[in-house]
Amino acid sequence: MRYPPGVSQSDFDRAVRQFESSIGAEWVFTDEADVDLYRDAYSPLWGEEEEKIPSIALAPQSAEEVQSLMAICNEFQIPVYPVSTGKNLGYGGSAPVLTGSVVLDLKRMNRIIEVNEENAFALVEPGVSYFDLYNYIQEKGLDLWIDCPDPGWGSLIGNSLDHGVGYTVNPYRDHFEAHCGMEVVLADGDIVRTGMGALPNAETWQQYRWGYGPWMDGLFAQSNFGVVTKMGFWLSPAPEAFCSGSVQVMRYNDVHELVRITAKMMYSGILNSNAGVQSPMQFAIGQNPEMQERYERANEEDIRILDEFARSNNTPFWSSQFKFYGPREIVDSSWEYVKRQFADIDGVRYQDQESLNFPMSYEELMQTADENHLGVPSMSVFQLGNRSNFNPAGTNGHLGFSPVVPMTGEAVLESNKVLVRVLREMGGNTVFNVPPYSYHQRTFTILVGFTVTRDADTNRKTREIFRELVKVAAEHGWGEYRTHTAFMDDCAAAYSFNDNALLRLQQTLKDAIDPRGIISAGRYGIWPKHIRDTEGKGVATIKVSKEKEGDSNV
Amino acid sequence: MRYPPGVSQSDFDRAVRQFESSIGAEWVFTDEADVDLYRDAYSPLWGEEEEKIPSIALAPQSAEEVQSLMAICNEFQIPVYPVSTGKNLGYGGSAPVLTGSVVLDLKRMNRIIEVNEENAFALVEPGVSYFDLYNYIQEKGLDLWIDCPDPGWGSLIGNSLDHGVGYTVNPYRDHFEAHCGMEVVLADGDIVRTGMGALPNAETWQQYRWGYGPWMDGLFAQSNFGVVTKMGFWLSPAPEAFCSGSVQVMRYNDVHELVRITAKMMYSGILNSNAGVQSPMQFAIGQNPEMQERYERANEEDIRILDEFARSNNTPFWSSQFKFYGPREIVDSSWEYVKRQFADIDGVRYQDQESLNFPMSYEELMQTADENHLGVPSMSVFQLGNRSNFNPAGTNGHLGFSPVVPMTGEAVLESNKVLVRVLREMGGNTVFNVPPYSYHQRTFTILVGFTVTRDADTNRKTREIFRELVKVAAEHGWGEYRTHTAFMDDCAAAYSFNDNALLRLQQTLKDAIDPRGIISAGRYGIWPKHIRDTEGKGVATIKVSKEKEGDSNV
Repeated sequence: MRYPPGVSQSDFDRAVRQFESSIGAEWVFTDEADVDLYRDAYSPLWGEEEEKIPSIALAPQSAEEVQSLMAICNEFQIPVYPVSTGKNLGYGGSAPVLTGSVVLDLKRMNRIIEVNEENAFALVEPGVSYFDLYNYIQEKGLDLWIDCPDPGWGSLIGNSLDHGVGYTVNPYRDHFEAHCGMEVVLADGDIVRTGMGALPNAETWQQYRWGYGPWMDGLFAQSNFGVVTKMGFWLSPAPEAFCSGSVQVMRYNDVHELVRITAKMMYSGILNSNAGVQSPMQFAIGQNPEMQERYERANEEDIRILDEFARSNNTPFWSSQFKFYGPREIVDSSWEYVKRQFADIDGVRYQDQESLNFPMSYEELMQTADENHLGVPSMSVFQLGNRSNFNPAGTNGHLGFSPVVPMTGEAVLESNKVLVRVLREMGGNTVFNVPPYSYHQRTFTILVGFTVTRDADTNRKTREIFRELVKVAAEHGWGEYRTHTAFMDDCAAAYSFNDNALLRLQQTLKDAIDPRGIISAGRYGIWPKHIRDTEGKGVATIKVSKEKEGDSNV
Repeated sequence: MRYPPGVSQSDFDRAVRQFESSIGAEWVFTDEADVDLYRDAYSPLWGEEEEKIPSIALAPQSAEEVQSLMAICNEFQIPVYPVSTGKNLGYGGSAPVLTGSVVLDLKRMNRIIEVNEENAFALVEPGVSYFDLYNYIQEKGLDLWIDCPDPGWGSLIGNSLDHGVGYTVNPYRDHFEAHCGMEVVLADGDIVRTGMGALPNAETWQQYRWGYGPWMDGLFAQSNFGVVTKMGFWLSPAPEAFCSGSVQVMRYNDVHELVRITAKMMYSGILNSNAGVQSPMQFAIGQNPEMQERYERANEEDIRILDEFARSNNTPFWSSQFKFYGPREIVDSSWEYVKRQFADIDGVRYQDQESLNFPMSYEELMQTADENHLGVPSMSVFQLGNRSNFNPAGTNGHLGFSPVVPMTGEAVLESNKVLVRVLREMGGNTVFNVPPYSYHQRTFTILVGFTVTRDADTNRKTREIFRELVKVAAEHGWGEYRTHTAFMDDCAAAYSFNDNALLRLQQTLKDAIDPRGIISAGRYGIWPKHIRDTEGKGVATIKVSKEKEGDSNV
């Protein structure tokens, strides 16, 4: 058995016996082979001293059991790291930020407490996955859609608390935005309901978000302030129809109008799903050193030649894809309206893509361009960069860098150039590079996926590039909306206004709400008081034997 | 000069000299006649010992001045009550919860720091009113709308922090929902920027809401955790057209389908503005004791006779009004689509109402049914229940009771009966009684406006009724979304799950973030530690001479 840092072996042995009598010995995992399942298979620290390794894992089945486990951890000041179900690949999986933390695995708390069709909401526990909720809705024949991320094994609660996102419409596609009401177990085992849930017999816990007085829910996302044991989610009535199409513009400088109009359509609510802006010319430019140089410099002459190059390729410089959900007549007239807004851009082209009417069978849905965009969870987007039949030789997963940039043509150009330059100069290996995409209502996010490997030198280089990107992005005013556990301090440090006033405030609240500092030490840069100023607090004190580094990496 | 409680006269005199040297003596109001302008003209405690009276008032002109004033208050542990501009009539105006608090009046901080047309947002200070922002947009000819509450003198920041609402579309009409990013001065004078504002040179402070790590913004609404000195707001591009219409259904039990379909249209985003459900039969039933009795009992026989009564009056039992904003073709097809959803309700009627194309001149806008619904601030809805040419004899304002109920026909019937019964049995005087209305996306709110007077006995009776309503509503699982300063403890007490766990948590955070307990003592039931358990802490220690009770009541 591995021991957590800062706890004596005799105390921990006593705590383990209390855990066992509290939830049953079969749900206290102390065997290293069991606990290794909680390692991050995509870790960019794999096998190094800094790799994040849990000590043991606990799997309670109810909020009451969570309360009693937290009370024990609080008594012995044992670091504990709650996870829900599924794994947020590319952001750290279920491995704790502080090596040696006890993983509190909430997967057994998988009750769907209520799905209300008339008021279109669900109340669930952390172990409920997108698959679970989708299947429940299908079995009951409810006229509701869910909004899911990729992949579908994730927890609604976990994804929402990580500020995860999906692909249908506002407000559902921002998973924290679409939640309403929480139940939270605090570090000392006390239990709180937020929003209207604080009213006994509450009738609008999942319907009215703000409750009475200061709103607490924000505190429990991307943080370490409590263990969320129930959460409400708004669901969408199933739409009748869907259509998608793209708008293509021919010249370098058309990006400004393309993005300006897209943004206006979004803020107007006419577009209420994701859209992005990509360059069909990107590949051809990347293959041509002269054009790449011109693209990065982009003076007047360069732009003229780039436009000619695009014309000679008969390829649009930029394109955006749009999606519409709703009644057939509104979907179609919205797309026609959106097309017309771009009509003043010389040479603009349109392409109609999918046009679907619901309900569709599961088999039909799985044959569409992307079922995730139609509220159907899947594992289609999965294992990016991992060893597989398609990537047998190679790498062991991915690592996401995801800065947020303004929804302007200028930011599209600038962020592309700045990040590409860092990658080219430092030689990073990427498995994907998603161009600016509106995962959120009013901004673009760029997603760069680095490959991770089992080779420490390669990973070290990747970490170096990642940190440089965080720094360069911050200099441009762009920050990450979430990050991998390995870089939580780095990203937090970028948010440095007034001597890191925000982090200092978060630490003040952390010390008040979790005074013994037991929950998820280090998460999003927030360390508990008793080790906050300790050098090397993020470095492992636990070694994993080499033969444990096997293939159990999903 | 009046002195705040818990501060020695000599300390306060020293503090006042420091205030004066910090912001200039002309902005330190110590004269009682000046300070009385901050009394709540609509107070249901007017002239009684419990009336909430400020000691002095301070009017800084910048965040830096707020920082230095807060540092002084913190040093001397002086209770301070920040207000923005305008007055939230019916909810307590600018008078502090704790009598003797120093009002921190932010009206001079009225800079519109940025209005960005392409990304449709504004960054403002607390003294910026809806009129100010509207006028700025008109003068610059920007293609943007604001969403305003009634009346338009209010502060965007103050209204948003009170969870105020407006009348255009989601997400703009929920004023806290529509904000993005804050700057906050803490009790000790430190200054924090939330969300992406924590990045120096942030490029998406007003565009990406959540920032990195736990989201702090919720803490500063309906609370006393800091002084918000800047805040971003999302704005809507100006729509091209508007239409409105109503759906009427004939029978008592039709309310269920009427509300079910309305809710579905809202969750689908086809309806994205306010709608309510009212009974055109309400007046006729109220005038007829037999029918009123049948309405409240509502057994099968009663409902049959009520339906006959409605038929003989040729009056629909229920009606809902809907509004649509957007391109002409989408507005019209949405309204036609919505109509069709109700077609299965036997005898349903439809009425087309306004149909408008924008831009319209200001004069034309002021002749529409309600300019507030078209993003034009005004004072049209104002002085409800106050003495005026229309109400010369009478009362002195109103007091709002505003519980949130589910968006179901059952809740419409039940809440109506329960609240009407309390009012009838206790004999309350109301100036308005707004039937269930979706001020928020997924719930109905009921608004009962009591008259307030200058007669203490009448007011005392009103307070008794108000408290009974809070209690009865809570028994049914309905809580207030905001409340008057006189009832903040009463409403907070209703949110009592797990021995008031939510309030206890809020108190824990309050003690951490404002350890000397200086900001807005008692706001939303949160009292600072040093007087939390003091009996009678909410009762005045300051007397106002009778001749000061004049007419300066707006």
